[in-house]
Amino acid sequence: MKLLTFKKENQILAGVLMEDEHFVLDLAKAAELSGQDPFPKTLLDCIKTGNQIIDDIETLTEWAAANEENAREAIYELKEVQLLAPIPRPLKNVFCIGKNYAEHAIEMGSKDDIPEHIMVFTKAPTTVIGHEQPIEAHESITSELDYEGEFAIVIGKTGKAIPREEAMDYVFGYTIINDVTARDLQKQHKQFFLGKSLDSTCPVGPWIVPASYVEDPSQLRIQTRVNGDVRQDSTTDQLIFPIDELISVLSSGMTLEPGDLIATGTPAGVGKGFKPPRFLKKGDTVEIEIEGIGTLKNTVG
Amino acid sequence: MKLLTFKKENQILAGVLMEDEHFVLDLAKAAELSGQDPFPKTLLDCIKTGNQIIDDIETLTEWAAANEENAREAIYELKEVQLLAPIPRPLKNVFCIGKNYAEHAIEMGSKDDIPEHIMVFTKAPTTVIGHEQPIEAHESITSELDYEGEFAIVIGKTGKAIPREEAMDYVFGYTIINDVTARDLQKQHKQFFLGKSLDSTCPVGPWIVPASYVEDPSQLRIQTRVNGDVRQDSTTDQLIFPIDELISVLSSGMTLEPGDLIATGTPAGVGKGFKPPRFLKKGDTVEIEIEGIGTLKNTVG
Repeated sequence: MKLLTFKKENQILAGVLMEDEHFVLDLAKAAELSGQDPFPKTLLDCIKTGNQIIDDIETLTEWAAANEENAREAIYELKEVQLLAPIPRPLKNVFCIGKNYAEHAIEMGSKDDIPEHIMVFTKAPTTVIGHEQPIEAHESITSELDYEGEFAIVIGKTGKAIPREEAMDYVFGYTIINDVTARDLQKQHKQFFLGKSLDSTCPVGPWIVPASYVEDPSQLRIQTRVNGDVRQDSTTDQLIFPIDELISVLSSGMTLEPGDLIATGTPAGVGKGFKPPRFLKKGDTVEIEIEGIGTLKNTVG
Repeated sequence: MKLLTFKKENQILAGVLMEDEHFVLDLAKAAELSGQDPFPKTLLDCIKTGNQIIDDIETLTEWAAANEENAREAIYELKEVQLLAPIPRPLKNVFCIGKNYAEHAIEMGSKDDIPEHIMVFTKAPTTVIGHEQPIEAHESITSELDYEGEFAIVIGKTGKAIPREEAMDYVFGYTIINDVTARDLQKQHKQFFLGKSLDSTCPVGPWIVPASYVEDPSQLRIQTRVNGDVRQDSTTDQLIFPIDELISVLSSGMTLEPGDLIATGTPAGVGKGFKPPRFLKKGDTVEIEIEGIGTLKNTVG
């Protein structure tokens, strides 16, 4: 199941990809046409209602597949709609985990850079863009724009001091994040925030896959390609701090809320890790593919 | 003029302090009683309408002072209402500037810690509390809870790549922030975010003073007292990076938006700066007084 946010005739709608992946079902419209109770208007509002909404979405999708004639008004061709980030405007900054793959920590410095405790910084909500929306080059302020392909968690319910053994109950689903970074600003300003928060430097998507549709989130291949050239190629079993630990530590004194996004860190192979470095330039296309989730693609514009 | 958010009978309302500072005027109710156009419901919505709302608020306050009988239903005793943070739930993390007073940078390390470029980190919106709301002690996860009294900017309009000479036009007003910090977590997790984002560790208030009511924001005395004992005592002319530069640098690649909060940094005298350190404990009361703004008071509960 792939849950998405899309724009159609200036309306921002919550949808689900139909089984053949060529068509999108408008959830609110489908609920109306099928005579169900009104559906939440946005994907964030769907997430806030809790994981049981997945069953309602399954029912709707099955109804639409079985009743094409009646459902027609709620079905669009995927290529005819504009995908937005699944949550186009998060209610707080995106949480990002730094140096959570050992090989990446080493490429950024040395073995001494492998963290003993999780390292957390954030990206402003103004950074968020969707699949195929352009990443601004910001050429007047950075000459070291870099990609970071990341597996990301979408939180499904409010929690604080969540024990590791209960952490997975708080996951709504998973998506992909490109934690685009201005390396020169990241270094110059010491704390990572500014170099991580330039407008449009947080592509998210193309959709969210609910947790129940991901067999083992700790065994997914993650690959980043720049203009088709493979740069990052790893699996989520390489995370130093796994998902349940991230949720537990983040929530130890800070309340997590539905719709919170946690980018879990990037594998080795970022542009800065090459000698000489291979930073992004205008026209470059970055694709991040995660097994079982999809491919997030954006071009530097 | 002091603009505030308060709770009365479970309603969250936008208000202004009456001249004697003992009474609060409910802005939406006053607009209704005086026959004016409907007023925005929240202080954030007031800010979003732009600086010209200050004139409307002046008119309303004058009307209420001159028509006590008619305005009675819109006036409450300050001591009878609960103040909340002026923006109880910011739409993104609070921006915080690190080490922006030289003496503080030195007390945290040495002269080498005085930054050459602004250092920015954030606090999650879940940290925000108002005047006289309790700061949680978080004793199970930190033994080094510390105060940081800070002068804070409230952004009034959307802007990007704002030149220094226009930066002050983007300021709606000023408030006070206590950037409460778990020093042990700040150190352990390297990036500041986690040690700065425990729930209730961002007291903001007690209100916002519009920019036009602050003669010179670069000449304000700032004092922090713990249980009445003066710990920090400086003036905003000591800021290494002044307000206009902060706004210009922050907005260089990142859009600033109405209601954004920027804590400008803390002067010397934090608990960690003492030998031995003087961290906060349950029952301690922290008061931050800024000339022309007010006094923000919170107790560790």
